[in-house]
Amino acid sequence: MNKNISSQTLQRLPVYLNYLISLPEKIKSGNISATAIADALQLNNVQVRKDLASVSQGGRPRTGYVTAELISDIQSFLGFKNRDGVIVAGVGNFGKAMMCSDSFSDYGFDVICGFDCNENIVGTSINRIPVLDISEMKNFCLNRNIRIGIITVPEKHAQEVCNMMTDSGIKYILNFASVHLNVPKGVTVHNENISLTLAMISRCNFSENRT
Amino acid sequence: MNKNISSQTLQRLPVYLNYLISLPEKIKSGNISATAIADALQLNNVQVRKDLASVSQGGRPRTGYVTAELISDIQSFLGFKNRDGVIVAGVGNFGKAMMCSDSFSDYGFDVICGFDCNENIVGTSINRIPVLDISEMKNFCLNRNIRIGIITVPEKHAQEVCNMMTDSGIKYILNFASVHLNVPKGVTVHNENISLTLAMISRCNFSENRT
Repeated sequence: MNKNISSQTLQRLPVYLNYLISLPEKIKSGNISATAIADALQLNNVQVRKDLASVSQGGRPRTGYVTAELISDIQSFLGFKNRDGVIVAGVGNFGKAMMCSDSFSDYGFDVICGFDCNENIVGTSINRIPVLDISEMKNFCLNRNIRIGIITVPEKHAQEVCNMMTDSGIKYILNFASVHLNVPKGVTVHNENISLTLAMISRCNFSENRT
Repeated sequence: MNKNISSQTLQRLPVYLNYLISLPEKIKSGNISATAIADALQLNNVQVRKDLASVSQGGRPRTGYVTAELISDIQSFLGFKNRDGVIVAGVGNFGKAMMCSDSFSDYGFDVICGFDCNENIVGTSINRIPVLDISEMKNFCLNRNIRIGIITVPEKHAQEVCNMMTDSGIKYILNFASVHLNVPKGVTVHNENISLTLAMISRCNFSENRT
């Protein structure tokens, strides 16, 4: 399996998956070709063929894919069989948005806990996801082998929270605070700076478009 | 002025600006070199020199920049002299986070209005920014020549809201709904798909890091 697929391919995988799952049982228990999928979704035939080949080795000339195998391979790739728990530090508007988003599920992620230090929020739940005191992060994450954290705390607390995350075994951090975070080797930080993105698209002729 | 600067450079500009503004009046009314700025901010000398040259033509060998001119040039580039009003469609958790974020200001953006169709929210204000009925968007934007909109509505309403934005003269759209949006020529859409980003960094060896 090719782990170095493009974001464009990755983004189409849930589309293929949803389509395949929606098919009548008769087709689901048989075969399907990349061309048939491309036609149904009005996508480019070659692109679909490449996308599917990057996650499944089951494609055969003329017969196509065994539908059930293809569904299973896409689900594996998207992490459905090995779902990742995600924690959110900072349960303000941004944190709540993360905890309420239903789009994580499409990629095999489950936001399973929020952390905050505000007494009024700790002990409550958002979208049926508990909010714990931030001091409980380490135990929580180590016990559950959590690898992914989202930082939605104010800038001034971001580095401290980042340190707590790396101490808790977290390897991948999505950071919404607009500060640079120092992390130990082996930890990946991705900074989401929304105002920077706005500036890039509206003032700098920046045309990167991730879908 | 070079409009095609990198996101890394763009991101450092507010850092330079904040530093320059914080200087004592004596220096602010004199000159400053790229090297002095690099030293003070613990950044690479060559990088700072390049960054500044991309937004100001005032650098002179040995004497450096007239500090006041450099401040003015960075402010111009970041849009401080021609600030952009931004509207937000969809005042849920995400929309509220956008309306409460203070990071837009660093890049010369002001979120000036939220739009929603929920009677309980319309007429209120978030962070002193009014929330109007979405039917008022067109008049509001055309009267104020708004160019930038953020879409934080549920997926199923995103295309409809996008159409309203383009009808309202909006040219740059930041889209948080995970659907592809069709826009007329001349309109730029940037899709922020947070779960996709998480999948890229944690499952696909994706190491792009925008800061």
